Amino acid sequence: MDKGRILLAVTAFHPQHWHELLSADRTVVSEPDGPTDPSITYAVVWKQRPNLLSRLPNLRAIFSIGAGVDHIFADRTIPDVPIVKIVADNLTQHMTEYVVWRVLDHHRQGSLLRAQQNKKTWRDPPQRPANDISVGIMGLGTLGKAAATALLSLGFHVNGWSRREKTLAGVSTFAGEAELIPFLNATDILVVLLPLTPATTGVINYGLLKELRRRNGLGGAVLINAGRGRLQKDADIVRTLDDGTLKEASLDVFEVEPLPRTSPLWNHPKVFVTPHAAATSDPNHLVPIMLKQMDAFERGEPLQNVVDREAGY
Amino acid sequence: MDKGRILLAVTAFHPQHWHELLSADRTVVSEPDGPTDPSITYAVVWKQRPNLLSRLPNLRAIFSIGAGVDHIFADRTIPDVPIVKIVADNLTQHMTEYVVWRVLDHHRQGSLLRAQQNKKTWRDPPQRPANDISVGIMGLGTLGKAAATALLSLGFHVNGWSRREKTLAGVSTFAGEAELIPFLNATDILVVLLPLTPATTGVINYGLLKELRRRNGLGGAVLINAGRGRLQKDADIVRTLDDGTLKEASLDVFEVEPLPRTSPLWNHPKVFVTPHAAATSDPNHLVPIMLKQMDAFERGEPLQNVVDREAGY
Ligand SMILES: NC(=O)c1ccc[n+]([C@@H]2O[C@H](COP(=O)([O-])OP(=O)(O)OC[C@H]3O[C@@H](n4cnc5c(N)ncnc54)[C@H](OP(=O)(O)O)[C@@H]3O)[C@@H](O)[C@H]2O)c1
Ligand SMILES: NC(=O)c1ccc[n+]([C@@H]2O[C@H](COP(=O)([O-])OP(=O)(O)OC[C@H]3O[C@@H](n4cnc5c(N)ncnc54)[C@H](OP(=O)(O)O)[C@@H]3O)[C@@H](O)[C@H]2O)c1
Repeated sequence: MDKGRILLAVTAFHPQHWHELLSADRTVVSEPDGPTDPSITYAVVWKQRPNLLSRLPNLRAIFSIGAGVDHIFADRTIPDVPIVKIVADNLTQHMTEYVVWRVLDHHRQGSLLRAQQNKKTWRDPPQRPANDISVGIMGLGTLGKAAATALLSLGFHVNGWSRREKTLAGVSTFAGEAELIPFLNATDILVVLLPLTPATTGVINYGLLKELRRRNGLGGAVLINAGRGRLQKDADIVRTLDDGTLKEASLDVFEVEPLPRTSPLWNHPKVFVTPHAAATSDPNHLVPIMLKQMDAFERGEPLQNVVDREAGY
Repeated sequence: MDKGRILLAVTAFHPQHWHELLSADRTVVSEPDGPTDPSITYAVVWKQRPNLLSRLPNLRAIFSIGAGVDHIFADRTIPDVPIVKIVADNLTQHMTEYVVWRVLDHHRQGSLLRAQQNKKTWRDPPQRPANDISVGIMGLGTLGKAAATALLSLGFHVNGWSRREKTLAGVSTFAGEAELIPFLNATDILVVLLPLTPATTGVINYGLLKELRRRNGLGGAVLINAGRGRLQKDADIVRTLDDGTLKEASLDVFEVEPLPRTSPLWNHPKVFVTPHAAATSDPNHLVPIMLKQMDAFERGEPLQNVVDREAGY
């Protein structure tokens, strides 16, 4: 069997390096030869143009360039072929770095200490040990599980919340709507690593944040969102920061990206903004994984990490 | 045998909480009843006043309130009794948090991202994965080993340097003067967790920092010192930051503490200053360990974690 041709359908960034690396092994095009181009076997996509994939007669699978697939479902016309999400050690490790970094910066009072330095103030603030703090992770998938393991080894208590019940060594697990409030009530630092689906859209809102645990001496709960921006209500985060519910937040994702210059989050003294950079997809690591999957698929093996369409992730 | 009395000899901070906790189990005094007070069995000390301990006839052991003991040897008249350094999970964990936090903040370009936020710049800087970076730890004792383990589990390469040869799973180890240069030449981020002794005083100087590896795209090496201030030459650090040898530094300790307001380190844009707060001794965790040691000693068991006087740590 011939090697299937790839349509590389990317908006929002320049996929030149992806093109080069994929081309080393297969024929790659950036545009189909008309809406019913029969030569396309695979689509490798990031925020593909709506309707682009809907009528390709021989399309056999769609590969997402990121771990999230919400950008694919934003196009309601995508055909009924398997959608493969990326799972890669490199990506997982990057996200773990980000989560541990942000948890520690809040836990170790980075912004207070930077402000003290600005004023040349030599003062050792009271500091709790990690094992006095509970980090709650929403989303216990590839990324959430890896973050949980890293935080446990630093001594933090870890709670985890997922759709289906799970057992994870050392982690207090909660599942589904019914256990969301108990999960939040036991959490000092909330880390969001959920996928964006109809069920999760807007879940990080005022009511949810109000349920986080607030203990004496900690000065409020902490929010870290590295999942997707539309999981959260930007305005509700500002409100909880301003009314003292939240002490601080680290946000890598936003309702609208790039974050508009008018957003109050940019200048908010309690917010650390990163430009959707927690775990960037690196083609050097991800392309070989995709090509290997295509080869295996053509040998008749099943695709790995296929999205559950009904669940939306 | 009666429970030995404790002299709590502390300068530089108020030991009230230590006094209360030690008093729960033993008689504690803050001053001996004259220079030859025969009633004192133990001294629990932090920067004790010189000469205070030299003539106490029944002193049987000195306990340091910190992991370092240089503050004890600063008094050249200390009598020849065992000196016990503190080893405590709580302290080790705190230091591991600090080291991982600082390594990640440099590795993940915290200061660049904070500067970008100030300017509302949405730009994803190139980011290497942890397994492309080597962290070198000077001092592979209780604290250095724990930091090494945590950094390894995040994916960093770890080099370690100690006085005597060591084997440590996953760590490339180097020992003694002879292997110092090869250790530095293989290190992108240097973490200093040495004790201050005659052999280590001033070791973090211009010549040493010049030997650190500087690779394309990393913008210079990084220094993190959480050992003792007099290990380093403050002025040499400024010089290496200014000439581009070092990209950034996180300093918890300084030649003179509190860091004088006139020090250029306070305002240096490439320096993160913390007030000797990496791992503060918490009496709630440390006093029970000391009291247990005294009880065991009085039952005839040997003292643990006794300082090697000749080595000075
Ligand atoms: N900021 C960045 O740079 C960046 C980079 C990569 C990925 N991401 C984001 O991270 C997300 C997670 O990635 P992943 O690979 O870990 O995904 P994953 O393996 O698919 O895991 C998703 C987790 O979320 C849980 N979940 C989904 N819907 C839920 C619901 N309605 N209620 C409760 N839990 C729910 C799942 O529960 P079950 O375990 O029960 O299925 C699972 O534990 C991606 O979808 C992407 O949006 C962001
Ligand atoms: N900033 C803070 O808040 C804070 C808090 C606690 C401690 N500290 C500092 O951290 C230091 C380390 O604590 P620790 O408990 O890990 O000490 P430790 O267990 O005594 O270990 C000291 C390490 O340094 C190595 N070393 C000593 N002299 C050396 C030399 N001349 N050349 C090469 N290596 C040498 C030792 O080598 P060997 O293994 O061969 O003996 C050992 O690996 C303390 O002394 C203290 O100054 C700072």
